[in-house]
Amino acid sequence: MIFHTTQLRISDSEYRARCAALQQHLGENGCAGVVLFDPDYVKYYSGFHFIPTERPMAFVMNASGQRALFVPRLEVEHAQSNALIERVEPYPEYPGDSHPIFALVHLLKDMGIGGLIAADHDGYPWVFGYRGQPLSVVAGAQLFAVRPFIEDQMAIKSPAEIALLRESVRWAHLAHTLLQRYTVIGASETEVSNRASREATRAMLDAIGPLYRGHSAYYEGAVAGYRGQIGRNAAVPHTLALNLTFQPGDVLVTGASAPVWGYVCELERTMILGQPSDEQKWFFEHMLALQDTALAAMRPGVPCSEVDKAVRAYFARHDLMPYWKHHSGHTIGLRYHEGPFLDTGDHTLMQPGMVFTVEPGLYKASLGGFRHSDTVLITDDGIEMLTYYPRDLASLTLPV
Amino acid sequence: MIFHTTQLRISDSEYRARCAALQQHLGENGCAGVVLFDPDYVKYYSGFHFIPTERPMAFVMNASGQRALFVPRLEVEHAQSNALIERVEPYPEYPGDSHPIFALVHLLKDMGIGGLIAADHDGYPWVFGYRGQPLSVVAGAQLFAVRPFIEDQMAIKSPAEIALLRESVRWAHLAHTLLQRYTVIGASETEVSNRASREATRAMLDAIGPLYRGHSAYYEGAVAGYRGQIGRNAAVPHTLALNLTFQPGDVLVTGASAPVWGYVCELERTMILGQPSDEQKWFFEHMLALQDTALAAMRPGVPCSEVDKAVRAYFARHDLMPYWKHHSGHTIGLRYHEGPFLDTGDHTLMQPGMVFTVEPGLYKASLGGFRHSDTVLITDDGIEMLTYYPRDLASLTLPV
Repeated sequence: MIFHTTQLRISDSEYRARCAALQQHLGENGCAGVVLFDPDYVKYYSGFHFIPTERPMAFVMNASGQRALFVPRLEVEHAQSNALIERVEPYPEYPGDSHPIFALVHLLKDMGIGGLIAADHDGYPWVFGYRGQPLSVVAGAQLFAVRPFIEDQMAIKSPAEIALLRESVRWAHLAHTLLQRYTVIGASETEVSNRASREATRAMLDAIGPLYRGHSAYYEGAVAGYRGQIGRNAAVPHTLALNLTFQPGDVLVTGASAPVWGYVCELERTMILGQPSDEQKWFFEHMLALQDTALAAMRPGVPCSEVDKAVRAYFARHDLMPYWKHHSGHTIGLRYHEGPFLDTGDHTLMQPGMVFTVEPGLYKASLGGFRHSDTVLITDDGIEMLTYYPRDLASLTLPV
Repeated sequence: MIFHTTQLRISDSEYRARCAALQQHLGENGCAGVVLFDPDYVKYYSGFHFIPTERPMAFVMNASGQRALFVPRLEVEHAQSNALIERVEPYPEYPGDSHPIFALVHLLKDMGIGGLIAADHDGYPWVFGYRGQPLSVVAGAQLFAVRPFIEDQMAIKSPAEIALLRESVRWAHLAHTLLQRYTVIGASETEVSNRASREATRAMLDAIGPLYRGHSAYYEGAVAGYRGQIGRNAAVPHTLALNLTFQPGDVLVTGASAPVWGYVCELERTMILGQPSDEQKWFFEHMLALQDTALAAMRPGVPCSEVDKAVRAYFARHDLMPYWKHHSGHTIGLRYHEGPFLDTGDHTLMQPGMVFTVEPGLYKASLGGFRHSDTVLITDDGIEMLTYYPRDLASLTLPV
């Protein structure tokens, strides 16, 4: 068998199957059609990836399964070339001489969509300077909330989606390897992150070849960095980049990923710059045990909440709650965070095809943060770690 | 006078003045308080920059001007260290054992906010897997739509905001200069873009020093690239990166920017790889004349629509409408697109302090695209070009 890079794509038939499931949901709920404004939802059902702006775009489908993309003139050829959708319906511009919402309502009428309409938002959200009336008002229609169905559908990844996530892992791994290699005392996080990301990206492009598409509006290629999580700042898990310089004894929390046809994995590691102190070792080993606890609790049929409860029980048993800041993980795919969550309050049953990050963390203001994040697939009978970067302290201790 | 890099920041008093204006708006409309979920609005009033996830965050202020940030446990120290807000009110986690919306409603009650509440969304938007009930339902309150006021307020930039935009221009210019220098036949767009961005970022960090903050969740440092707008693909203005290799005769459309304490400018140029053909020259010169037409029409007191109408008149006069795809520009600041727009349908009067991109374009499928974008300030008596990169064809013709 010849390996084609084109296997690294969502096939046309998979997009059709996604739409067919949504169409069935419309039928079951008496909806005449669906309108989706969320860029990730549009991607998911049409394969059309675009940069969101003030100009509304929407995926539209009626109860018979006829589909259309509603786009500004600017995006016509782009939509036609990228999407699997038969009809691309343009309006001139936003705000334009006639507000685009009227053109959208006209399209809905033309496709026989009225009465009860499934929608993710009541009109294009007010973003990037867009202003407009609710769709329900202009269309004189009742809206049906379709987001729960879509979120549930997106949570189960197909073999093709899992293949893309695996490919993302490959290049995140390379970027992370280079990040670890180039991190030395006195270098700045920006410099090291840029170098590792650039070299990994170049290798990825040379390896996959010209067919590679990131399909991300925000970044292209493999990336690895610290995002400010250096030394004591690592105690702030969602800090932003601080352009810090590495110092001996720093605890470091990393992050690496690579958009691959829109899909992104998550790989994070805790590293120590120089020989770890006893306190650093103590936190590192507890962090590792917390992650092991979560992994041991994960399998199909178990509620997500049970994983987080097992983790919390470990926290309580070892008096670690002063160092707790967040739940144990989230799902991931076209978006860098998705639901369901490994959280005491999320009772969704884990199912084969769900892909979670597993990342319980420990944070102490005077010391820093300790968190690994791995991307983990729920299989028919357990789990598979998609990320495979070393997790042990010896492998993550940097020479000084 | 000694120059401090700290001048490159929004001062505490400016944040207070922004809040005071919003507080006055609350009073004028009988609102007991305001709740803002939009990350850019939270930034604008509090100075707190963060990564949006499934965990709701909000800026809250009551009619007396008392302010709070509503954040998950994860972000407590981050909010406390970054924000000017007296009160940081944490909830444990989302979804958590009790949905965070109840903690938010508790906070509102505690701050005396009930009855009529100004809000940007009816609850945290359904993003990144978040699910929740409308705020109006849980709080038993009526909501007042506050977005139009905020959008109008954000549209007028202060001297400090303009200084940040000027600084963004400086580093966008450098990144663009390097992009132009490194673009040669046979190189790939990713390689050239990465090299130019990395070197410009390094110089920026060395020049501004360790105080530099990008305050962007998506990218750090200066960036310049093509985003796929190479050769015939340049006819698709919002294409995504295609990892293309430069060929002789290609028309290229660039983009460069740099986040500086959250603010971003826009610099785009059309370049030709090798001696331009007669057809390329014809399109380039018309594009330049279109941009001159827009610039000539811009001054305070004139409706935005007049600028786009002047541009459209030039299109019509020279039979260029087959090559038209979009309006003449948008405003810019904390977001890469903001309103008002240089659009025939936007009758907002231009005012001193507004900052527009000016970027009419011409697109021909068989040839490519032709568009410069400059960032332009409306002054008391006219305009000032904040970007100053050469615009003429000779300067933008690359040797082969």
